[in-house]
Amino acid sequence: MDVKSIDEPIFLKNYSLKQLETLAEDVRGFLVEKLSVTGGHLGPNLGVVELTLALHKEFNSPTDKIIWDVGHQAYVHKILTGRANRFDELRQYKGLCGFPKRSESEHDVWETGHSSTSLSAAMGMAVARDLKGTNENIIAVIGDGALTGGMALEALNHIGHEQKDLIVVLNDNEMSIAPNVGALHNVLGRLRTAGKYQKAKDELEQLLKKIPTFGGKIAATAERLKDSLKYLLVSGMFFEEMGFTYLGPVDGHNLEDLLENIKYAKKTKGPVLIHVLTKKGKGYAPAENDALGTWHGLGPYKIESGEVVKKPGPPSYSAVFANTLVKTAKNDNRVVAITAAMPGGTRLDIFAKEFPDRMIDVGIAEQHATTMAGGLATQGLKPVFAVYSTFLQRGYDQVVHDICRQNLNVFFAIDRAGLVGADGETHQGVFDISFLRHIPNMTILSAKDENELQHLVYTAVQYNDGPIAVRYPRGNGYGIKMDEVLKEIPIGKWEVLREGSDITILTFGTTIPMAEEAAELLAKEGISVKVINARSIKPVDSDMLLDLAKRKYPILTIEEATLQGGFGSAIIEFFHDNDCHGLIVDRMGIPDRFIEHGSVSELMEEIGLTTKGVINKVKHMLPRKQQRA
Amino acid sequence: MDVKSIDEPIFLKNYSLKQLETLAEDVRGFLVEKLSVTGGHLGPNLGVVELTLALHKEFNSPTDKIIWDVGHQAYVHKILTGRANRFDELRQYKGLCGFPKRSESEHDVWETGHSSTSLSAAMGMAVARDLKGTNENIIAVIGDGALTGGMALEALNHIGHEQKDLIVVLNDNEMSIAPNVGALHNVLGRLRTAGKYQKAKDELEQLLKKIPTFGGKIAATAERLKDSLKYLLVSGMFFEEMGFTYLGPVDGHNLEDLLENIKYAKKTKGPVLIHVLTKKGKGYAPAENDALGTWHGLGPYKIESGEVVKKPGPPSYSAVFANTLVKTAKNDNRVVAITAAMPGGTRLDIFAKEFPDRMIDVGIAEQHATTMAGGLATQGLKPVFAVYSTFLQRGYDQVVHDICRQNLNVFFAIDRAGLVGADGETHQGVFDISFLRHIPNMTILSAKDENELQHLVYTAVQYNDGPIAVRYPRGNGYGIKMDEVLKEIPIGKWEVLREGSDITILTFGTTIPMAEEAAELLAKEGISVKVINARSIKPVDSDMLLDLAKRKYPILTIEEATLQGGFGSAIIEFFHDNDCHGLIVDRMGIPDRFIEHGSVSELMEEIGLTTKGVINKVKHMLPRKQQRA
Repeated sequence: MDVKSIDEPIFLKNYSLKQLETLAEDVRGFLVEKLSVTGGHLGPNLGVVELTLALHKEFNSPTDKIIWDVGHQAYVHKILTGRANRFDELRQYKGLCGFPKRSESEHDVWETGHSSTSLSAAMGMAVARDLKGTNENIIAVIGDGALTGGMALEALNHIGHEQKDLIVVLNDNEMSIAPNVGALHNVLGRLRTAGKYQKAKDELEQLLKKIPTFGGKIAATAERLKDSLKYLLVSGMFFEEMGFTYLGPVDGHNLEDLLENIKYAKKTKGPVLIHVLTKKGKGYAPAENDALGTWHGLGPYKIESGEVVKKPGPPSYSAVFANTLVKTAKNDNRVVAITAAMPGGTRLDIFAKEFPDRMIDVGIAEQHATTMAGGLATQGLKPVFAVYSTFLQRGYDQVVHDICRQNLNVFFAIDRAGLVGADGETHQGVFDISFLRHIPNMTILSAKDENELQHLVYTAVQYNDGPIAVRYPRGNGYGIKMDEVLKEIPIGKWEVLREGSDITILTFGTTIPMAEEAAELLAKEGISVKVINARSIKPVDSDMLLDLAKRKYPILTIEEATLQGGFGSAIIEFFHDNDCHGLIVDRMGIPDRFIEHGSVSELMEEIGLTTKGVINKVKHMLPRKQQRA
Repeated sequence: MDVKSIDEPIFLKNYSLKQLETLAEDVRGFLVEKLSVTGGHLGPNLGVVELTLALHKEFNSPTDKIIWDVGHQAYVHKILTGRANRFDELRQYKGLCGFPKRSESEHDVWETGHSSTSLSAAMGMAVARDLKGTNENIIAVIGDGALTGGMALEALNHIGHEQKDLIVVLNDNEMSIAPNVGALHNVLGRLRTAGKYQKAKDELEQLLKKIPTFGGKIAATAERLKDSLKYLLVSGMFFEEMGFTYLGPVDGHNLEDLLENIKYAKKTKGPVLIHVLTKKGKGYAPAENDALGTWHGLGPYKIESGEVVKKPGPPSYSAVFANTLVKTAKNDNRVVAITAAMPGGTRLDIFAKEFPDRMIDVGIAEQHATTMAGGLATQGLKPVFAVYSTFLQRGYDQVVHDICRQNLNVFFAIDRAGLVGADGETHQGVFDISFLRHIPNMTILSAKDENELQHLVYTAVQYNDGPIAVRYPRGNGYGIKMDEVLKEIPIGKWEVLREGSDITILTFGTTIPMAEEAAELLAKEGISVKVINARSIKPVDSDMLLDLAKRKYPILTIEEATLQGGFGSAIIEFFHDNDCHGLIVDRMGIPDRFIEHGSVSELMEEIGLTTKGVINKVKHMLPRKQQRA
């Protein structure tokens, strides 16, 4: 069928198994075709085609609530709920969001992006249902990787205790973004191989019936032995122990098995966990045979060959970071790298190749990663936690309470700082300055280009006076020449990029080029703009600020970060605290709202962070200066 | 012995069991006596006397690292490491800290305060040890309550996977701060009763040896049966499943058993969990028979009678919050209260009595609590998460990503906002404005007294435009008259408390009295001060601010919160964003460093947040105004 004709999932109710199987193929074909143009999370979605069909056949969305953990695997759900016709604009500006979005459809009952939130949301909905006395089903679909996140475990624990009617579908695809880490994964591994015990199970059950009571004391223990065998046989020991009824493992590409288990789960009282084994990329060979995780989320590709369309370009900031870290680690055996399930994204895979023993992947567990880094630091090592800005939010309390409070030498390499583009509002790295700057003992640096980044990485490794963060954006550098010798950049000192006498722009990182370009253009109009690379966000360059204050020129701050409590805020705080009153200081940055998906340049345009925006702002500021003169 | 004569724990090496037992009694007597004067966490410390003695006898601190989760149970550790003579000043200004403190002793290898961090820290230290090639023991002592915190589960998962040599002592006292919640607690409960299977265990093991191989296929399953029996018999299934060697349950007040198990753990490769059963308050009857948790942490008491010395006073802010919530919930069945293991501290115990079905205690799990509240809100309910300011830090990402991003109607009742006093730097509630203010869609209110608090609670329940936070301090109200009828306080509108024409003070909450007093005293010197209750922190009162800007008076902001990115910062941001340049705005608040323990008034004195400090600041500001005139 043409999946674009789908309006609501209700049509699935009358579908036969055969029809469902055909539809699965149609959905796969649609996904492979559409994503070859737009890019997107192909692998995860090909893995859940049958699962999504089965869920929508058995449940009545949106009365029944289906919650997609992380959410990048909700494309099939979007197709089945009438959004196939918007896939041409997937993850594009004003187009279909790559994650569940409540404003898009009533079938998107909960928005995700960050991992491990679905169980808590489901629990909230289940509590609400029971208080209201309704009887809808609540289903959370969570991957094996997301299950290692602390908040998912908190929720699992609470749900097991409360015994609410709630269905957790554990989508176990062996490899989430990177190979999973942790004991929990071993448990899942054991469950995964439990299939072969299926036959032995029956025989053992027979055997069990034959165990005599042994009379007296042993009787009770024999009973308990039977209890224990239940765990052994069903092999869902872990989840049963947590209070769940465990169903599975189920072949996630066998619709018949899926439907049967879902039906059974619906009838079961209390929390149920359906353990579904799926294969990422299922049905599309290049994505199925994906050793490197390329097909998890990617840009356009050629359907026939599976060749990924790569624009040649300079190395990514992530790669520059990782390569520099390798360089420094060769001469400094204190350096230990940490990632939370992002060895590829952070490019710490490069580091791991050189120093397998000095690289720790903790799985999706930013809290643990942060505090473990603290433990390492107390022993004189130099832990480097490479983490996306948006995911460091998960470790905020640990940064405050464990790292900054104890003033430990932990280096936070903050990747994807600033707008990230297509992943949208759940992933924008725009809050880190505001949530780090107010923490005592924290130092924050930001790289203007890949060459500066390598020096800042080197600087951060040398720094031994407490926690330090180095921010750098998503994407590739400019392709500029890289210095051969690494050098320390003085902390709390800025760099004058251009002299000028009418107005001063303080900026850092990605917004430096627009400031320089604006200065260039304004110069042609006779306006003389000083441009400063304010790469040290905390501490600020107080000498330079005091000097600027004396000169009384207006000052414009520009940051690709939220304005509230951000860098510009630090500047006006400084002037007020140092009795430098009467200065004109204006701030440009990200306004007080969440920024949706789109290309970074479209989003920058939307919020006015452009060369033209800077020029307009400067012109707006100058008459005021003249009025005062 | 006189425990004050203890210098280093090394003397324990030569102590006999008998001597240890006598010492345990001496330590108990010392704790009961000293804490009767200073107050402190008596119950938890009486519970770990034998455990602490046993750990220090078997291990060589500080070479071996003993990490105390949460840390309020480290008093015995402090006594054994030469700090008994400082117990007269426990938790007092410049006195002995109530938590481990690295600056106090080399035996305090890791500082705690917030729960569930010890396993991550221990893992970091273990990784460091193995990289450095040394061989010290790493021991984390964690309570059953703290184990439900997500980050502890993340760490457990990672440690189990990595199989590092590391000892986790699970201090299971059945009741942590409040009765524990969660499936994990049920598991522990089952383990707790496992003692009675001890005898049957031996008999069953004999039986197991007799199970024939049954030939052929069954042989393998019989092997697995034996595996399974191991879990059954040792009853540590959950932890064994996570990759730990499980020892116990051990009677935590039997030194012989403790020493034996610790010795065994030292010899065991890989991670070991020793499950120790202790009784809070052990050895002091009033604390042992503590049904309400009074003796967890308390002020002075009479030793003989166990009578707690209570100063009569007005109701606490927490009680006013809870009572008001009860009132509103009677007419509004959307209201659901949530706590993370703090029903007593937040006084939601009052709410639970009236509405047992509408009160949810999730255990120590702030992340889950926050997002679960979001789930409830999507279903039209009005979740109220009452949480200490410092513990909400744990839910920062959830507030951003789940609540504010989806703009859900969750009410955060932020208790202990501002300085908290004796608990010190891990517990000061000084960052919440800075970590909440920059999140889009968030509204933040702050109560100046208990009467205003009740109206703000009512206001927040009525508010249906997104997340809202109401802040209130630790401790008692002023005893002022409470309005009988609850009313809505307009959001984004401030209250003029006193008119004046020389300078304007913008403040809120606890710092209002000093502003008013300063104004009163300054009036006598002919300085006219306007005082405004800026109870709406986000949004600010823009009409009033624009009006103030027109009048050009200097403005002083005062907040019992960190200055970086705080309320004062919001004010100067506003003026700069609205082209109100040239205003003199000075800010008073908490400086950019962590504030240690002491009484709140001592701490306020230290940082200059006093009436005198306000007067000095105003006088400093006024000449500048005159210079400009």
